[in-house]
Amino acid sequence: MLKGKIEIHNRVPVENMFEKENGLINLIYTPGVAYVAKEISTDKELAYEYTSKWNNVAIICDGTRVLGLGNIGPEAAIPVMEGKSVLFKLLGGINAIPLCIATQNKEDIIKFVKSVEPMFGAINIEDIESPKVLDIVERLKHEISLPVFHDDQHGTAIITLSALINALTLSEKKLKDILVVILGAGSAGYGIYKILHAAGCTNIVVVDSHGSIYEGRDHLNGNPYKQEIATKTNRGKISGNLDDVLKGADVFIGVSGKAKVLTSQMVKSMNLNPIIFALSNPDPEIFPDDAIKAGAKIVATGRSDFPNQINNATIFPSVLRALLDLRIKYLSEDLLVTVAQSIAGLVDKQHLKENYIIPQINDQRILPIVTQTMKQVMKQHLMK
Amino acid sequence: MLKGKIEIHNRVPVENMFEKENGLINLIYTPGVAYVAKEISTDKELAYEYTSKWNNVAIICDGTRVLGLGNIGPEAAIPVMEGKSVLFKLLGGINAIPLCIATQNKEDIIKFVKSVEPMFGAINIEDIESPKVLDIVERLKHEISLPVFHDDQHGTAIITLSALINALTLSEKKLKDILVVILGAGSAGYGIYKILHAAGCTNIVVVDSHGSIYEGRDHLNGNPYKQEIATKTNRGKISGNLDDVLKGADVFIGVSGKAKVLTSQMVKSMNLNPIIFALSNPDPEIFPDDAIKAGAKIVATGRSDFPNQINNATIFPSVLRALLDLRIKYLSEDLLVTVAQSIAGLVDKQHLKENYIIPQINDQRILPIVTQTMKQVMKQHLMK
Repeated sequence: MLKGKIEIHNRVPVENMFEKENGLINLIYTPGVAYVAKEISTDKELAYEYTSKWNNVAIICDGTRVLGLGNIGPEAAIPVMEGKSVLFKLLGGINAIPLCIATQNKEDIIKFVKSVEPMFGAINIEDIESPKVLDIVERLKHEISLPVFHDDQHGTAIITLSALINALTLSEKKLKDILVVILGAGSAGYGIYKILHAAGCTNIVVVDSHGSIYEGRDHLNGNPYKQEIATKTNRGKISGNLDDVLKGADVFIGVSGKAKVLTSQMVKSMNLNPIIFALSNPDPEIFPDDAIKAGAKIVATGRSDFPNQINNATIFPSVLRALLDLRIKYLSEDLLVTVAQSIAGLVDKQHLKENYIIPQINDQRILPIVTQTMKQVMKQHLMK
Repeated sequence: MLKGKIEIHNRVPVENMFEKENGLINLIYTPGVAYVAKEISTDKELAYEYTSKWNNVAIICDGTRVLGLGNIGPEAAIPVMEGKSVLFKLLGGINAIPLCIATQNKEDIIKFVKSVEPMFGAINIEDIESPKVLDIVERLKHEISLPVFHDDQHGTAIITLSALINALTLSEKKLKDILVVILGAGSAGYGIYKILHAAGCTNIVVVDSHGSIYEGRDHLNGNPYKQEIATKTNRGKISGNLDDVLKGADVFIGVSGKAKVLTSQMVKSMNLNPIIFALSNPDPEIFPDDAIKAGAKIVATGRSDFPNQINNATIFPSVLRALLDLRIKYLSEDLLVTVAQSIAGLVDKQHLKENYIIPQINDQRILPIVTQTMKQVMKQHLMK
């Protein structure tokens, strides 16, 4: 889109701005604004009342892992973050301001986010390389007072669990009984393992470029997130490559960024009527036709030109809207699971079928159900 | 203004965003946006074509010197910067994004601005304490590739010179012959001294809280800007307080932040028909009635409820518009003087009178004349 997808608009009437006696400029600018400024200086909290802070989300990106394109730099990330901002506005009514920054250093990024805290009601971390980004999210959770949403981790996790809940209903299987293989141990893989684990799925194997992750494996050092995966999943310590661990699995979830790495042969080796979520973009781990031919019962991708699009955009505008409105500070795994369940519930049993397991991105029921769900979870937390 | 004065709007049509085959989401977001992102990654310059960068200005403020309120913190600065953003949009068509930041450390502020460079076409520095802010502006001039406009320094200087040019025409005096006393040696005082000097005014005395500034005076150490003032003004090394140096002066320019410090007695001691610019807000160094009673010929303030409002808002939206459109990197003193002259020229000789020496803030001739003037200056620079 030439010349940008978003712009600043004024929320104040501008017709009589410069009228001699009662021009609005005297109120919104000097001298009138001084009274508002003074009030806020005595109580920072009033910034939520008197400024746009309540509705401002910063989209923070350092350009290191943009889409499937890798480290393309902050300038090249701008059009992506502007597209994100368009969806934030359209689906969540949010002012999302892209801040694509010229540093890729972890401490500098953390410092940057702390610096912009006064202006914003929430932070959205986006397309920063893993595991650096997981450290950043973890640190910010403790070091700033705003909610920190990491779309690649939290957004992907929620929407994947939503789709999986419905896929399992169709397959008449239960989360606690199935074997799930996740290909990819970056932000998305980590987020998905975490939400599945919190939802009661105990039999998970995560595969990275060195094969399945298990306790004591090589290539885990220095990555506490893979270490965590190693201690919480794959309790049988099954080693091997994707084709080894897929044998007998019920569900494949691909967030590897690698096209066509799932072969028909591997699908055939899985349990009967396997569920295939091949989420890498633009080219999935296996194309739906090939997966179905190989025996898959339900196939989902990240793309809009196939059925069952698992796309974060279904969820991030609504979750951020609720985080802002409810002033929620902390995204617990409980909260993420409950939101995923509520989204899954929007596909009613009557309409649920192999090529409709997840609501459309622009389903207008998403925003109210997410807000309502998050409100209830917060209430329960308060009552505990 | 409750809940903020500005918001993000979408610039793309949203009607068919989610249509199954040709939904715009496929273009502005994944997968389509990947092509634009890839192109920019091969040539950063394309961010000016494909994103909002061309029209984005960052308003950087650390909350240390907001209006006349002092160090009230970043949250309290937000409503002021939002008001500024409203004027940027209304008078310059610019997306000005307030970034009120949670650090008051010089090096951290410089680092912050460098971090946001990719997103913006120009930087506007605002309401940061002096002399720290002058260091920041000076450093950024060399350390980033964007134009850095410092409104308190450059904006105030331009509009003050514009008004002075017309006041002198009315008084039949010339810049090179007059004695100007500037009260205040912060950003505004420094900017005004610099532009007057560049415009050919050789007889200037700047007064700070220790009295007149002259070479060899105490209390100049560690402030290179006052040192510069000491070597470039007051060549007669006149020492004393405001009342001492005002005797026989033609022009008083108050940017002291102190109300009612100019007495009738002092005005009476000035040269015949003195010009009084009492620019401190909300309460000027002397109120217009008192100044006129004491013999002032022409009086200007920063306020909209008196004639001759000298307000940066007359100039900053147009100058930033031109900086963005012409991709000017560096604000030379020459450029500032020429812009000031062009603004002064908008008050034609026929209408020029004691209570009309400066155009109204919303005079629609300002934007085109500023752009045209800056274009010509740049052409001349290129031809040199």
